[in-house]
Amino acid sequence: MEASTCKQDLLQKKKNAVLVDGVILNGPITDSKAGGKFVEEACKIIMEEIIQKADDVTEKLASSLLVYPMYPSLVNRDQHSVERASSHVHSVTACFSSIFSDHPRFFNQLYAGIDYYSLVARFITEALNPSVYTYEVSPVFLLVEEAVIKKMIEFIGWEEGDGIFNPGGSVSNMYAMNLARYKFCPEIKEKGLSGLPRLVLFTSEECHYSMKKAASFLGIGTENVYFVKTDESFKSVSRRGKMIPEELEKQVQRARNEGSAPFLVCATAGTTVLGAFDPLDKIADICEKHDLWLHVDASWGGSALISRKHCRLLHGIQRADSVAWNPHKMLLAGIQCCALLVKDNSDLLKKCYSAKAAYLFQQDKFYDVSYDTGDKSIQCSRRPDAFKFWLMWKALGTTGLEERVNRALALARYLVEEIKKREGFQLLLEPEYANVCFWYIPPSLRKMENGPEFWQKLHQVSVT
Amino acid sequence: MEASTCKQDLLQKKKNAVLVDGVILNGPITDSKAGGKFVEEACKIIMEEIIQKADDVTEKLASSLLVYPMYPSLVNRDQHSVERASSHVHSVTACFSSIFSDHPRFFNQLYAGIDYYSLVARFITEALNPSVYTYEVSPVFLLVEEAVIKKMIEFIGWEEGDGIFNPGGSVSNMYAMNLARYKFCPEIKEKGLSGLPRLVLFTSEECHYSMKKAASFLGIGTENVYFVKTDESFKSVSRRGKMIPEELEKQVQRARNEGSAPFLVCATAGTTVLGAFDPLDKIADICEKHDLWLHVDASWGGSALISRKHCRLLHGIQRADSVAWNPHKMLLAGIQCCALLVKDNSDLLKKCYSAKAAYLFQQDKFYDVSYDTGDKSIQCSRRPDAFKFWLMWKALGTTGLEERVNRALALARYLVEEIKKREGFQLLLEPEYANVCFWYIPPSLRKMENGPEFWQKLHQVSVT
Repeated sequence: MEASTCKQDLLQKKKNAVLVDGVILNGPITDSKAGGKFVEEACKIIMEEIIQKADDVTEKLASSLLVYPMYPSLVNRDQHSVERASSHVHSVTACFSSIFSDHPRFFNQLYAGIDYYSLVARFITEALNPSVYTYEVSPVFLLVEEAVIKKMIEFIGWEEGDGIFNPGGSVSNMYAMNLARYKFCPEIKEKGLSGLPRLVLFTSEECHYSMKKAASFLGIGTENVYFVKTDESFKSVSRRGKMIPEELEKQVQRARNEGSAPFLVCATAGTTVLGAFDPLDKIADICEKHDLWLHVDASWGGSALISRKHCRLLHGIQRADSVAWNPHKMLLAGIQCCALLVKDNSDLLKKCYSAKAAYLFQQDKFYDVSYDTGDKSIQCSRRPDAFKFWLMWKALGTTGLEERVNRALALARYLVEEIKKREGFQLLLEPEYANVCFWYIPPSLRKMENGPEFWQKLHQVSVT
Repeated sequence: MEASTCKQDLLQKKKNAVLVDGVILNGPITDSKAGGKFVEEACKIIMEEIIQKADDVTEKLASSLLVYPMYPSLVNRDQHSVERASSHVHSVTACFSSIFSDHPRFFNQLYAGIDYYSLVARFITEALNPSVYTYEVSPVFLLVEEAVIKKMIEFIGWEEGDGIFNPGGSVSNMYAMNLARYKFCPEIKEKGLSGLPRLVLFTSEECHYSMKKAASFLGIGTENVYFVKTDESFKSVSRRGKMIPEELEKQVQRARNEGSAPFLVCATAGTTVLGAFDPLDKIADICEKHDLWLHVDASWGGSALISRKHCRLLHGIQRADSVAWNPHKMLLAGIQCCALLVKDNSDLLKKCYSAKAAYLFQQDKFYDVSYDTGDKSIQCSRRPDAFKFWLMWKALGTTGLEERVNRALALARYLVEEIKKREGFQLLLEPEYANVCFWYIPPSLRKMENGPEFWQKLHQVSVT
């Protein structure tokens, strides 16, 4: 383009400009070409610096922390150029790889490794930026969520049910607690807990800490979580950490004698520390006898349902009223991917959670509004977390997921045998899941007497 | 490699195989080369089918729904090949673009358009899959969160404060409600609400529906949300939808007379439907007088704080005790990106939310454990949502974000003027924010008398 044409063009544009409050409305919003290029280049860096290094054990798992203070420097008024932002991506990626969670030797408490399919699904949903409250804005993502929930329910062993993906196992447990309360006394939704007898729930002393958080958040109070003893004492090698059904029965009786109102038992399938599975069948008997809601926190252990070899760990789960299950843990669907599943199929979730906002959930839409999930949720905007699990499941098949579970448990088995052979290592218990609990006893402590000082020093070893 | 060497190699491998429970532990876990290639190809498709089409008005915003039923078909046992999975990505993307939320003409209730920087940040965090509960697993993401919260607090006008990114405006409001309750009576955390007087909170009749959800979830009860009248009646053109301070005063008195316990006022800065801003200064006066926690739900309106021109809409916000603000709305940081900000700097968040899980939040770690945020949160695993806002802010500068806000409001202004000129359109009120509320009256209704039948028919027009 020649200079004169260019100038004419600019003048023409200026003439046609729609100016409101000092903003040219028909001017460029954003340089979409440069933006696209930036994304493209960033994708290359992400590929080279993260994805392609994910199988390389020679890469550093944790690099120096010294670079950190440079980063979260203050945001300032100046607009940086695209080039400048691109260089940020470079440094940020390099910096973040200091804790490289995709590294073959990175082991979080409950996840490790990378799944390429769920990753692609996450890229797709990030690029599309949908929200799944109504069918009209996210039709396919909602159908996918429905399909995945149906399939998960099948693995639990229910004939029908309902469910919702939500932001974590802790939140899933809150959902279940509130649902059990609603079932116990629907008026609480409107009237609240004031003036009512004390509601009491039961869970094992090895349960996830979210039980206490949930009881406090929901206004029930942490003191009204009655912790049930688990089998064997803390430092015994044979300890399993499973809820003792007879102790549960005792606690329920205690609550009844106190005049409080027991409403819920939260069993755990795969405790966080020991990987213990509560005896669901026996617990279900007690729940039936006392008419208590049975919730199973299978956030961690639920994935074993996929394995024909290991699903027996959750024997009896089909008797639960609700189940929390996080595919983002052992199945590697990526944080966050968590479902609360509910056996009830009479729209209990919707009855319990609805607020019936007129601007969003009109009942006279042009489609079947039962597809709108917003009134089943404590959220309004909600991420399509089911989609990454769906694509991964599609790609790997159930056998692929099953292999993932079987492999994790076989690795744990192998580690146990190695620990037994190795001097200075002491196994805490024979695991039944992927948690391997052991002490490393450094040479300086190996001859020390087993007493408070020994344990204090040993604890120091594990936290540093 | 020759065939014989290859065979030898395989035999050698077989000989060295570590076999546990039928799983070859040192065999390949996943084909990382094929996986990497799959991600690379998927990135190309995402670039071509989504990112590069984001500025093209000629693209379809909503394509036929007919293809849907093909998709969420059942997951089956077979393992699909990488090629097969790749073709899924093709079809899924094509299918999802049926609601193409990046399209220049896609307008959600509260967001529209694409931001390239936050998108890249999202790709990075998805690829790294971190969780931000402790500093040791996510040091930089936590520092970034701290820096962003500090900056947001500066825009609110507080000298200090605290905060946490969480999964949505609704959840932010729940956080605030629980925090206000804790401040009002810390014992509720342990004891629960049973036996206590009725706790009562106040919010405008135009507030977000999450207030009712929160009151129900937290065991307070929806009936204990006292709705305060807003100015002008529903169908008046001059209606603004702002909370009337005198009416708030009356409701507080009513609650006191009833013997219940008022503890919280939730003002709204940017109501969902009308975009109204409650008069914060006057409401703060009442809160001070009655010793009530003031929470401002600025999930939608908070972004105006970034604009020197429009921040006056939130005049008085510095007097609030807590603020919910979602950068995923007008600022386009991508769903989900929501902060709850708290004026208190005495660790109230941590005191209120801590469960002190021994396995995660040891107090004797090798670093300053005040960086661990897990005990400020209702979640355990948590996404690094602050990071995308940080990178976007870094790249665009405050001026870039400011332009985004100014432009949105100028566009609303322009639309209002066009509506006034156009036959068959009736403006509901002069907007002060980006919400433009109007009726489209089709020719068949234009001569009809204003009565119940007219409104019923008009309503039908807007939902179909």
